[in-house]
Amino acid sequence: MNQPKRLMKIEAFVSKSLGEWISMRSGHSLAFKQFEQVVSKINIQELSMKNKAVIHLIEASKLEVNTPFLPFKICWEAESDWGGEGNEDKEIGESIMIPIPNNESEGLLIRGRGYTEKDSAVSTYKFLSDETFILKTAYKQTVTEERIWFISQNVRCRSSIIRASSSSGILQTSFASEVRILKGNSQQV
Amino acid sequence: MNQPKRLMKIEAFVSKSLGEWISMRSGHSLAFKQFEQVVSKINIQELSMKNKAVIHLIEASKLEVNTPFLPFKICWEAESDWGGEGNEDKEIGESIMIPIPNNESEGLLIRGRGYTEKDSAVSTYKFLSDETFILKTAYKQTVTEERIWFISQNVRCRSSIIRASSSSGILQTSFASEVRILKGNSQQV
Repeated sequence: MNQPKRLMKIEAFVSKSLGEWISMRSGHSLAFKQFEQVVSKINIQELSMKNKAVIHLIEASKLEVNTPFLPFKICWEAESDWGGEGNEDKEIGESIMIPIPNNESEGLLIRGRGYTEKDSAVSTYKFLSDETFILKTAYKQTVTEERIWFISQNVRCRSSIIRASSSSGILQTSFASEVRILKGNSQQV
Repeated sequence: MNQPKRLMKIEAFVSKSLGEWISMRSGHSLAFKQFEQVVSKINIQELSMKNKAVIHLIEASKLEVNTPFLPFKICWEAESDWGGEGNEDKEIGESIMIPIPNNESEGLLIRGRGYTEKDSAVSTYKFLSDETFILKTAYKQTVTEERIWFISQNVRCRSSIIRASSSSGILQTSFASEVRILKGNSQQV
């Protein structure tokens, strides 16, 4: 007989994150004291384990993956004001995330920008004592640390720190307030 | 013989926070999707337990205070851009903080805006498993939750959530990146 499956914290976290969100995001460029403001629409949806992009990313990661679960996809559509008015930039993107828990509150996360993207990354995640989700990713030039915490059922906060891989100097911080888009109702934060 | 004093987490936290900081702060007004940007200079300095304002605040709090320690003062000088250009607003202020640990990682914090201010508030604080400092304060109309975490010796992040006391609805979130001003050296983040 199998042991009853232990509930992973990542399971509750992903489940609470599914849906559509409006994000207000501020970036701080510390060396130049420059602010960036971005409003985005974000969609987070579950994917099947049979999804081709998911299978491809797991293979490409070369990880021995026994228990991946809850793969999901984040799509975003952003408007930035980098450089002030008249220089607006729209960005559309998507990223697939595949959590691989090591234990109840820690694990790996394979992330890639969809099926066609060659570069993928493997992040490590953990949960703090108050369920704050912390994600660390090492890219070639930079290391990022994100933390996401729910402040109500329909509002979550997300901060990120970008460091230079070489010096550990902090290049940028950012903070997003994400409010769930509720269907058929006025917004309730 | 006295027991050796247990090191309180608040002690290390305040000690790391002393000094002068440049703060980049972004406020998000969720209902109106408005951004606010503020650059401030912040000074955090230790106070003596014999400081008159400290004694006054402890008396006014009507708390039974056996073990207050490490009282400190935060002074700030801010420039805001609320309302866009041409409507700039400078704010100067100071606040006294008196931590009263309950145990190693939790306690109360008496806060007041100096000797002349009648209204003071008593906050609760705690530390998360990664030393993130969390401070909750109930005012008459609002409840605020702040969290502060160091991302290097000379850079700390501070987020805050302001809720309406009546509905728990979230009125505003904010995020500050605070960089220590180092004397005689170029800025090192």
